[in-house]
Amino acid sequence: MDMRYVRVQTTRGQLHYGILQANRSVQVLDAPPWLKGELTSLELPLNDYRLLAPCAPSKIIAVGKNYAQHAAEMDSTVPTEPLLFMKPSTAVIPMHGVILYPPQTQRVDYEGELAVIVGERCTGCSEAEAQAKIWGYTIANDVTARDLQRQDGQWTRAKGFDTFCPLGPWIVREVPAGASLTTFLNDQEKPVQSAAIADMVVSPEQLIAYISQIMTLLPGDVVLTGTPKGIGPMQVGDRVRVEIEGIGCLENTVQLKPQPVPASPTGLAD
Amino acid sequence: MDMRYVRVQTTRGQLHYGILQANRSVQVLDAPPWLKGELTSLELPLNDYRLLAPCAPSKIIAVGKNYAQHAAEMDSTVPTEPLLFMKPSTAVIPMHGVILYPPQTQRVDYEGELAVIVGERCTGCSEAEAQAKIWGYTIANDVTARDLQRQDGQWTRAKGFDTFCPLGPWIVREVPAGASLTTFLNDQEKPVQSAAIADMVVSPEQLIAYISQIMTLLPGDVVLTGTPKGIGPMQVGDRVRVEIEGIGCLENTVQLKPQPVPASPTGLAD
Repeated sequence: MDMRYVRVQTTRGQLHYGILQANRSVQVLDAPPWLKGELTSLELPLNDYRLLAPCAPSKIIAVGKNYAQHAAEMDSTVPTEPLLFMKPSTAVIPMHGVILYPPQTQRVDYEGELAVIVGERCTGCSEAEAQAKIWGYTIANDVTARDLQRQDGQWTRAKGFDTFCPLGPWIVREVPAGASLTTFLNDQEKPVQSAAIADMVVSPEQLIAYISQIMTLLPGDVVLTGTPKGIGPMQVGDRVRVEIEGIGCLENTVQLKPQPVPASPTGLAD
Repeated sequence: MDMRYVRVQTTRGQLHYGILQANRSVQVLDAPPWLKGELTSLELPLNDYRLLAPCAPSKIIAVGKNYAQHAAEMDSTVPTEPLLFMKPSTAVIPMHGVILYPPQTQRVDYEGELAVIVGERCTGCSEAEAQAKIWGYTIANDVTARDLQRQDGQWTRAKGFDTFCPLGPWIVREVPAGASLTTFLNDQEKPVQSAAIADMVVSPEQLIAYISQIMTLLPGDVVLTGTPKGIGPMQVGDRVRVEIEGIGCLENTVQLKPQPVPASPTGLAD
């Protein structure tokens, strides 16, 4: 088994990076692994931690229409250059985190994706240099309010709601060459998305190089590589699972977003 | 004079938040002022620091077409809801920082804007609650590669280049009700942009409330409130100055972005 790099919060509230062991305990690192974190003597047993998203990105850059069959299902084509957009870091939730269905939308879609974790500061890199800047890979769900995406033109709102970026469960250093990505809804045996990662049009290295010609990528930043065909809506109560061979699976549930009780203007309860 | 809240780097490399004194020394705070930073006994004389951007946002949310006359000059109208987009935090440069003109574009525009600094975590706020979440105001230049903005559809690349978010020079707690925003190019006496801040369609409080229904705003986050009419191109060698009454002025110059020398595949010089 490849090493699984995790980020955890202990029952006492401390945050740690670490390596997940076969017995599901976590061997704690003294820094993020991409900042040369080294193993400490601290080992957290299964019941003493919960998984967080495996990194805390300063930014999340994503690419639209990077699989030809997905571009086609959106009545579009693959752009001649990567089409970039951003998701705010406040959208990130971990494995088993709850996707909150906002009241502003009537259609919230899953989009299973391979996520690339940047390991080193990266400005103006060539493709050849970009490979060494990639620290590893995890799984993401680029949750999208499809109606708002169409309505707004800019995708920031549609893709930027809190909880709209499930990420995890852990980072691995390599993805097998022929790995497939599959997305499942609830207990359905047939996946709603199923594609070879190798079918992506612009590779992770090419994406990192392209983005780094525009903006500096920092250690721990995340690049989402686009979703294959098969996107579709989730309902409140659904469970969604994105699997990538060689990484694992990222599972989340959907719940209605609780609405704040409006404050009384007097500050007193009515 | 209102208090001017700054962020500085000392000649020895330390970062501090502080308050700029009339004699241009900086009285150092022990934390960002919005995190209840208190004055220390450390005072930095003028020659012992340089100004940084006055905060280090976890995200920058901006709004398009928030002045009617600017929407009109873009052959558009004010949207029925605020049109949000993001700029990466790696785009931020301080007062006197250099805007680097990238090789990918043939037109780089200035966009003078009022920037709002969030003081408190903010989720699902009403307009009434939003006011108390605003810590202060500074000046921004939402630099935009106009040709790429039109070409890409998504604005992430056009507005996301390194150095495309001059921010500063300092934060003040209040902006006078009738304050004007003016933008000047080089030594021209006539401003290229001139508008009353009060002409913005959606107010800072309304913007904070709107954004907080979508995503959580964190202390130090920045909201850009849109640019008035008069946008136009800058050339390499230009100096651009955005002034807002009651805050001050933000001045930057434009230089050609240096291109990295391609690495030889052998790692040896050719």
